[in-house]
Order: sequence, then C-alpha cells, then structure tokens
Amino acid sequence: MTDSNDYAGSIELLDCMGSDLDVANAARVSFGVEHSELTDRDIKLIKYLWEHKHSTPFEHCVLKFRIEAPMFIAKQHMRHRTWSYNEISRRYTSENITMYSPSKFRQQASSNRQASTSNLVDPVIDIVAGERSSLEITATDCLKKNAEDSVKLYEALLAKGICREQARGILPQNTFTKYIATANLLNVLKFLALRDKPEAQYEMQLLAKAMSTIVKEKFPVVFSAFNKVEEV
Amino acid sequence: MTDSNDYAGSIELLDCMGSDLDVANAARVSFGVEHSELTDRDIKLIKYLWEHKHSTPFEHCVLKFRIEAPMFIAKQHMRHRTWSYNEISRRYTSENITMYSPSKFRQQASSNRQASTSNLVDPVIDIVAGERSSLEITATDCLKKNAEDSVKLYEALLAKGICREQARGILPQNTFTKYIATANLLNVLKFLALRDKPEAQYEMQLLAKAMSTIVKEKFPVVFSAFNKVEEV
Amino acid sequence: MTDSNDYAGSIELLDCMGSDLDVANAARVSFGVEHSELTDRDIKLIKYLWEHKHSTPFEHCVLKFRIEAPMFIAKQHMRHRTWSYNEISRRYTSENITMYSPSKFRQQASSNRQASTSNLVDPVIDIVAGERSSLEITATDCLKKNAEDSVKLYEALLAKGICREQARGILPQNTFTKYIATANLLNVLKFLALRDKPEAQYEMQLLAKAMSTIVKEKFPVVFSAFNKVEEV
Amino acid sequence: MTDSNDYAGSIELLDCMGSDLDVANAARVSFGVEHSELTDRDIKLIKYLWEHKHSTPFEHCVLKFRIEAPMFIAKQHMRHRTWSYNEISRRYTSENITMYSPSKFRQQASSNRQASTSNLVDPVIDIVAGERSSLEITATDCLKKNAEDSVKLYEALLAKGICREQARGILPQNTFTKYIATANLLNVLKFLALRDKPEAQYEMQLLAKAMSTIVKEKFPVVFSAFNKVEEV
Repeated sequence: MTDSNDYAGSIELLDCMGSDLDVANAARVSFGVEHSELTDRDIKLIKYLWEHKHSTPFEHCVLKFRIEAPMFIAKQHMRHRTWSYNEISRRYTSENITMYSPSKFRQQASSNRQASTSNLVDPVIDIVAGERSSLEITATDCLKKNAEDSVKLYEALLAKGICREQARGILPQNTFTKYIATANLLNVLKFLALRDKPEAQYEMQLLAKAMSTIVKEKFPVVFSAFNKVEEV
Repeated sequence: MTDSNDYAGSIELLDCMGSDLDVANAARVSFGVEHSELTDRDIKLIKYLWEHKHSTPFEHCVLKFRIEAPMFIAKQHMRHRTWSYNEISRRYTSENITMYSPSKFRQQASSNRQASTSNLVDPVIDIVAGERSSLEITATDCLKKNAEDSVKLYEALLAKGICREQARGILPQNTFTKYIATANLLNVLKFLALRDKPEAQYEMQLLAKAMSTIVKEKFPVVFSAFNKVEEV
Repeated sequence: MTDSNDYAGSIELLDCMGSDLDVANAARVSFGVEHSELTDRDIKLIKYLWEHKHSTPFEHCVLKFRIEAPMFIAKQHMRHRTWSYNEISRRYTSENITMYSPSKFRQQASSNRQASTSNLVDPVIDIVAGERSSLEITATDCLKKNAEDSVKLYEALLAKGICREQARGILPQNTFTKYIATANLLNVLKFLALRDKPEAQYEMQLLAKAMSTIVKEKFPVVFSAFNKVEEV
Repeated sequence: MTDSNDYAGSIELLDCMGSDLDVANAARVSFGVEHSELTDRDIKLIKYLWEHKHSTPFEHCVLKFRIEAPMFIAKQHMRHRTWSYNEISRRYTSENITMYSPSKFRQQASSNRQASTSNLVDPVIDIVAGERSSLEITATDCLKKNAEDSVKLYEALLAKGICREQARGILPQNTFTKYIATANLLNVLKFLALRDKPEAQYEMQLLAKAMSTIVKEKFPVVFSAFNKVEEV
C-alpha cells in the first residue's frame, strides 16, 4: 500500500442527527411503539433490519462531513446521487491550490484490468526537458514537477486576464478539492459498502475507512450490524 | 372553511439539524469561506440563493416530524419522493383505529373540477338502514355511522381469524394514520411551496401551515426568503 | 392462497426502452467498447454485473406500466420513491368506482405478526343491520355489502353537493385505483426483489409476479441473472 | 465567445421513449381519460402543466444521450443527481486520450466573480522551459504544450508499470471524457433550465444548446411550453 505518511485528504464530522435508538424507534413506528432507551431487543431489531434489508428506518439519521480529497476521489464520491454536496468552485476562487503527491506508486494489476497491486514502486522516468534535452527523475519527482508546472501555468494564464473557468482546465486531477457532503445513515452505509472494499481505489479506501470510524463511533449498534453483513 | 375545531391531525418536530447560518456557510464553501455568526451579508446571500434557485446549500439542514393525518392526506404527502417515511402498518397492528370526522363539509366547486368552495354545509342524507327502511341523518352523522360500522365490521372480521392485511381493506380513507417523515430543508420547502397553497385540499393546507410554523421558527431567515418568492 | 379467480387488478406494459444488449453496452462504456449483437461474453458480463451489484448499467433501460390495483396495494407500490407515477384522482372524478372483493380470506399468522397463512376461510360474520336486528352473512358477503353501502353513501354525499375531495374519505381501501408507473430497469428489479417474495402481501405478490413475466419477456438475460441471485 | 470551430465535445441521442402525446395522456390519467392523437386541448394542457409546475406527467418520457465533453463539463453535468450515467473509466483503459484545446480565451469578469466576459484573447505567456530558459508562447500554444506534456508523462508512468488509477492523476481537466446519460424529460428540462443559460460556463452552454435542439425535435410542444416559461 501507499506509504501511510502520504496525505491523501481528510474528513471531519460537522454535524449529526440521530442515534442507534432513533433507528429502532423508526422501525417501531410500524407497530405504534416507542422506546426511550436502547434495549437488547432494540439491538436485535437493528441487526434484523439490516440483515433483511428493511432500509427505511436508517433514513431518519443524518451525517454531515467536511472532506478534502484529490479531484479523482471527489468525483467518485459524487457519483453517489443520494448525497448532498457543496464544493469549492474553481470558477469562483483560484486560491489555495494544492496537489496530491504520493511518495510511492502501486503497480498495474495484470489479472484485473481495474486494479492495482500492493507492490510499491518509484521508477525512474525519462522526461523531455526543454526542446532538446531529456531528464531522468523518479516518478514522485515527476508528479511534483507536473504539479508545480501546472500551478505556474495556471497562474500565468490568470495573470494575463484569462477567466478562471477556462484556466482551471489545465489543473491535473491530483488537485485537492474541498466539499461538504451530507447523507442519511442508510446512504452513508451504502457508500461504505461499496467504497470501504478492496475493489475500491486505495485513496478512496482511505476516505471510506476514516468515514467508517466516524459512523462506528456515532452509531455503534448500527455499524456492528452493517459490518457483520457487508464485511467492510 | 371547515370548523377550526375539527381535528384533522397533528404534526410535531422530533429532531432538527442545522440553522440559517449553516445554509449560508454551505453556499460559502464555493468560495472557501466560513462564518461563525450570521451576518447581514449572510442574510442577503440566503435571499439571493432562494431567488436564483441555488438550491444545494439548503440540503444540509434536516427536519424530522411525527405526523398524524387521515390516510388520504398521508398518501398525498408520501407522493413527495425525496422524503423518508416510516408509517404505522395495518399489517402489524389493529389497535387504536380512529377516524377523521369533519363537522361541516365544503361544496364542490363548479368552475374548477379539482376544488371545493368555502361554502360550509351539512346536508341531510337519505341512507338505507337495514333491508326495508331508510334513515334521514346529517352528512356528519353519516360519516360517524360509516366510521363506527367500518370499525365494527373490521373487528368482526379479525375476531373470526381473518388476517389483518385483508381486513384493513374495508377501513375507509378517513382512517387516521401515524408516521415519521424526514427531509432536508430544501425538500421541506418544496413540499410547502405546493401544499401550503389554496390549490391544495383544505386538510392538507392545515398540515402544511402547521409545518410552516415550525420551519419559520427554526430557520427564520430561510423561511422569510422562501416566503417572499413563493408567497405561501 | 386466494381463489385464482379473484380479480385483484391488472398490469399492462405501455412502453419500454432498451434491451439486454443495452445493459451490456452501458457497462462497456467503462472500457470504451460497444457491441452490436449480444454475445456470450455479454451474457456473462450481465450476470457478473448483477452478482457484484454494479447497478448503473441497468438504469438506461426503462419500463412504463398501466396498473389497476386496490388502494392498499397502490400505496405499497408508491413507497418505491425512484418510480414515476400518475394516478386517477378522486378530487377530479367520481366515476367508475369499483372494489376489490376477495371470495376467500387468509387467516392471520400467529408466529409472524405481519403475515397471513395459506389457510382459506370465509367465516360467517354477525353484523348489525338497521337499528335492532342483526344479520349473519359470510365475510365475502360482508365485504360486498360494505362496498355497496360505501358507494351509495359516497354518491348520496355527492348528490347533496359535498365536494369530491371530502366525500372520498368514506371510500374503503378496497377501492380500485388506476395509475401509470415508470421506472428504469434497476428500480423495477429492486421492486421485484422486495415484492415478488413470500413476505409480501398476497395481492402484492400477484402484481409483482405479473410484472416479472413482462420483465422476463423483454429482458430475458437480465431477468435470468436477477432471478439467480434474488430467487424471486 | 469562443471561436465556433473549437471542438468542445459532442452529444448524440441514443434512444428515446415517449412523445408530446404521452405527456398529455399521463396528465389525463388523473381524470381517467386518454387521447389517441394530440389535440389542441392537449397542447393547452401541456402548457398549463409546465406553467403550474405539475411536473409528474413529464416523467414518463425518457431520453438517452451519448456525450463527449471535457472533464470539468462532465463533472458539472454529473452534479444532476436524477440522471443515470456510465462513463469511460481511466482505471480500466488508457487509450484514446484527447484534450480540449480552445483557440481563444474569455477574460475574467470583474463584476461577477463566477463569470467570464465575451472578450476573446490569446495573450502571450512566459513559461519556464527546461532548467534555465524561458519561452514566450501564446496561451493556446501553452495549453497544447501542457496537453502534450501531460500525455507523454502519463504514458511514461504507465510504461514503467505504474497503475492507471494513479497515473491518471496527472491528466488535466481539459481531458475529454465519454459517457452515456439517461434522464426522464422532466429532469432533462431541469438540466436545460440551469445550463442553457448565460450564467453557465460557455462550454456547458454549448452542450446544453445541442441538447435543447434534440429535445425540441422530439418533444416540440413540451419544449415550446418549457421555453416560454424558462426563456432558455
């Protein structure tokens, strides 16, 4: 896996509505019953609900996150259409551009076209430098140079009065973006069921694992029921 | 309008996430800015957002209600597909059956096929009673009799072992139902824009007006911006 | 189960967009590849997609149905919030009121509070008739009488000028309703996965099974993949 | 505006379900009425529906598009969460990388932080070339060079065995992406109401205008009703 020191983003819980008890009580609306404290029967009920895909009682709890991630990860996140998002707009602001810079790279898997292996490499790359010379630098240095060059070019375009919405086109997908993301507990768990999995891109797994930790803390019974079925 | 003493249901706020300030801050994510207190500029921003249909910043606040309403009203509510619902199930429980019993009736509008007038009446109805006789009673008494007869028949069917899910078929749509309903602020406002309007059925307007009062209390700036545009 | 001659509604395919091949091609967009005919690899791909919950390729095919069902079934259907619906409105029209009239009844299950058994009964019910006498009739006759009495009362209220939107409140949930319902293939299958199941109310199963037959005919490969996993 | 010869992507209608008549008939389900041909009253009805935000009858028609667009445009499109998407994945394939290369640039608007002016420029940019020299080239040439350098670097990383999902991080947002996008007519129109507007980024307007032309051809009466209200 990528060096654990690589900064691939961050996630923070901004707000949260509801608790394990609220999930049980939402289910008990069917019977016209409500509990004021979480009982052992409620815990069993929550497990039963998740196992049998009775999903509506999980929709009355809500989590709101602040997230920073590379654009290619934010893009994957925003394919989850049941969430609500507000993101920094590079039509509005050109400030604080930072880039994802891994210090090691995973190798392409040969068996699975979509995947990468856990083999970490940082090969030497031959790049063209200027008109006539070439330059041998490591892949990590290549990315850093690419990041720096892109920002310089971006700022040069802005300095000449070119509009932000066009200038941003040259920023690479490694550019970090910031957004808030809100979803009900059901849709948070559906996100985790897909993204806190070995099939997900490693950088996405990092985000999903950090989100899992938050969900587990706020909804321990629900998370345990979820985890047993989905094996996240 | 219907006698204000008629009980047509109830609504209660169970939980709420967010505030006017959170709406403004969600919008300011685009610029990478956050305020810790609601300023005059935030108030202007919120008005601007609603007027110009920039709707996403309203999605990070959430309201959760407990509602009691006649089935025909709950059904209209549940056509709003962005909300989350859990409702009492007459497959599970046969207890606490109560009925909507208006004490006056609105007359059918002739110009608008969907509407009723504000003319309140309680005409005498000729109904068949038993095999040979007929009975002249007021419409309100008719409804009460219909409600009582339906519940008696329902209970007679259950007493003979007939399953609840079939027996409920004879319960009229005036039967009250109970449910919890959760939506983000945007979708609560979209509900109000349609249902807190003269075109809505009067009983629905009662629910919507009670909901408006709650929204106005929790999100005064947002509600004022909404109200100015939608003229609720 | 209920006598198969009982009319519990109908479903008809009004329109359909897409085919098995379109599902495979939607998935192959990821690779930048398209097939013009369904190959064995496409069939394997479709099975793989359903088994591994890669659900988006199933969203580009759409089915549009015309449905007639008792109100308690239509209500269950309309809890599926990803579908689109337009329904006959009893605020607009008071014509063609018909009722679901089963000729046999299922007994309440004792072990599962929500369920009914396959035991069919038609017990004799003692109902109050008029002011002083009682009447012993079968449950099926009870329902017929309840249906007739409700319609008579409904029409009597309308005849006195009471608005349709209030008069409908006395119509029982056995009243048939008509609606069109449109969803993409993924959401049709999600409906079937929940409703073409023994846990669903029998009358709902009838609707779901009829829908399954239609889906199977239009999307045989997809339906086979779905059926293998969901055991509908 | 940008030179009309600039290739900013393409849109093609792949499939379509429904017609103007189907919208009118979906609305007439409320009354229990259906027409077999579009009448003048249907045309009036459709206008009434859109003007009064009776939106459900527009949900039973569906359009499926194949789109090619720069990543920053596809990203804006995919914020519309009611649509269905399948997109080429740069985790799967590294083939056919092409870039958006405008031949002229719009200037940043000073009054509106989000907007650009219609002033077209192609200023000379001073960029660092190699280690010691600098290079004066036009902005358009800058973008071309940035595109070429990015692809070369991308391919160099892949040649050394680095996984596609990490290598893609250096590709700029000007990279073209391909996807299919399906939505019902209501949500297509909601997209156009926001994106076929002067406030939208010019490149997005190009996509929206091309989509408008398609919608107008398939649903002329609906589009006319929409256009009158939304002034697209």
